[in-house]
Amino acid sequence: MNDRSRPVTVIRHDGKTVQRCPDAVVTEEPLEIRLGDTPLAVVMRTPGDDDELVTGFLLTEAVLLAPEEIAAIEHHTDSRVSVRLGEDVSVDAARFQRSMFVSSSCGVCGKASIEAVQLFARPVPEFTVERARIARLSERLRAQQPTFAQTGGLHAAGLLELESDILTVREDVGRHNAVDKVIGAAALRRWPIPPSLLAVSGRQSFEIVQKAAVAGIGGVIGVSAPSSLAVESAVSLGMLLVGFARNLAFNVYAGEAHLTN
Amino acid sequence: MNDRSRPVTVIRHDGKTVQRCPDAVVTEEPLEIRLGDTPLAVVMRTPGDDDELVTGFLLTEAVLLAPEEIAAIEHHTDSRVSVRLGEDVSVDAARFQRSMFVSSSCGVCGKASIEAVQLFARPVPEFTVERARIARLSERLRAQQPTFAQTGGLHAAGLLELESDILTVREDVGRHNAVDKVIGAAALRRWPIPPSLLAVSGRQSFEIVQKAAVAGIGGVIGVSAPSSLAVESAVSLGMLLVGFARNLAFNVYAGEAHLTN
Repeated sequence: MNDRSRPVTVIRHDGKTVQRCPDAVVTEEPLEIRLGDTPLAVVMRTPGDDDELVTGFLLTEAVLLAPEEIAAIEHHTDSRVSVRLGEDVSVDAARFQRSMFVSSSCGVCGKASIEAVQLFARPVPEFTVERARIARLSERLRAQQPTFAQTGGLHAAGLLELESDILTVREDVGRHNAVDKVIGAAALRRWPIPPSLLAVSGRQSFEIVQKAAVAGIGGVIGVSAPSSLAVESAVSLGMLLVGFARNLAFNVYAGEAHLTN
Repeated sequence: MNDRSRPVTVIRHDGKTVQRCPDAVVTEEPLEIRLGDTPLAVVMRTPGDDDELVTGFLLTEAVLLAPEEIAAIEHHTDSRVSVRLGEDVSVDAARFQRSMFVSSSCGVCGKASIEAVQLFARPVPEFTVERARIARLSERLRAQQPTFAQTGGLHAAGLLELESDILTVREDVGRHNAVDKVIGAAALRRWPIPPSLLAVSGRQSFEIVQKAAVAGIGGVIGVSAPSSLAVESAVSLGMLLVGFARNLAFNVYAGEAHLTN
């Protein structure tokens, strides 16, 4: 059952005819993430790459500081994993709460959200990137989306390692999960992640910029629009933020100084 | 500051020229929702229609059973509201937890998620709807999206009341928020909501079908793709689920029996 897409029968209406056709939809299933025996979160995700998803989630939500803190990821069922931590690792339970921006005494606001990210963000690496590579990135991302082509129902995230030019792509029904998977994949290879950019198929909201910042990724490139808080965060953190990256054109909302010809 | 969009300066690259231009991005700001003095959730939302958002959120997450349980919504700041409940209203704290599908002893899985929704769903009203109205719905939704036109960064949700043919539309940077706003708006007018359909600009994931089901809405119509769990939930609950509603054509994934010519 746990494939990335599932067969369905769909009834197509085009205003003239009504046809029953076989089709496929993207698989969405819950995954419960436990720290030891303690339930931490349930994510609705597309099965596959679950260890990467869990690793990325724990890092980008600032529950853990490094993948080495994980001793093992134990799969109890298709929909439940327990993360066993290293013997000398203690997780500050409040850390997860804080990373979710549950209110502090000073209140919640956009400024407080950005300050919370600054607290957990890894320093943005020094990097420059050629404009032409940014222009091509969304096309490279789309070329590596096999399940999207089949179901139209997935988000993709890609991590471009600047030095090697390797682009790692993962897909998921949830855009946050796609980001966590690709960051988890990179983190399991090497930590801290080498200078990289995050490319996303969906909108660049605050939470996407936050995840990139906490993972020490220098910029976020999207095919769609950023939000105000995403722009303000990227400016505060010195990150590159690019939107509407389509057809070899793109808009820079923050960090133009990272670009070269 | 709390408008639905904010001015930014964007640097446009089209492969030949680089131009600085004034532009607008959709506003994203946190809103903390408290029940009395107890923090319940922080949602990242586009300011505006906050009372509708809070009312819809509390109903669709099954924290409250009816809008009448709310005595007042008190705004402390632009980013914090306290919901004062009626004197005889007691909220089962576990209810919110359960609605978030934190694990039960039987474990978490797609089937358990559907069963949890069934527990909280209002009965689907008996209704039929003409195919031509479904075909026109996504166009009507798009025609009522003023901020999308300006920023490209918003999701829209529309609630079509079947008897009156009134379509109420709300926009938000978050697709869940747009759904909560439009359901909150309808619930504040009349509860239970009269036979209605929910139209969404984004993907039809499980959580969107869940919110509709808990609010007693008979169907979800989207311009994009549904997920496997959305289809399975709609089938189990007897709801209409339509995807790819574009250019007067659409695909029915569940509840074809609700359609007439």
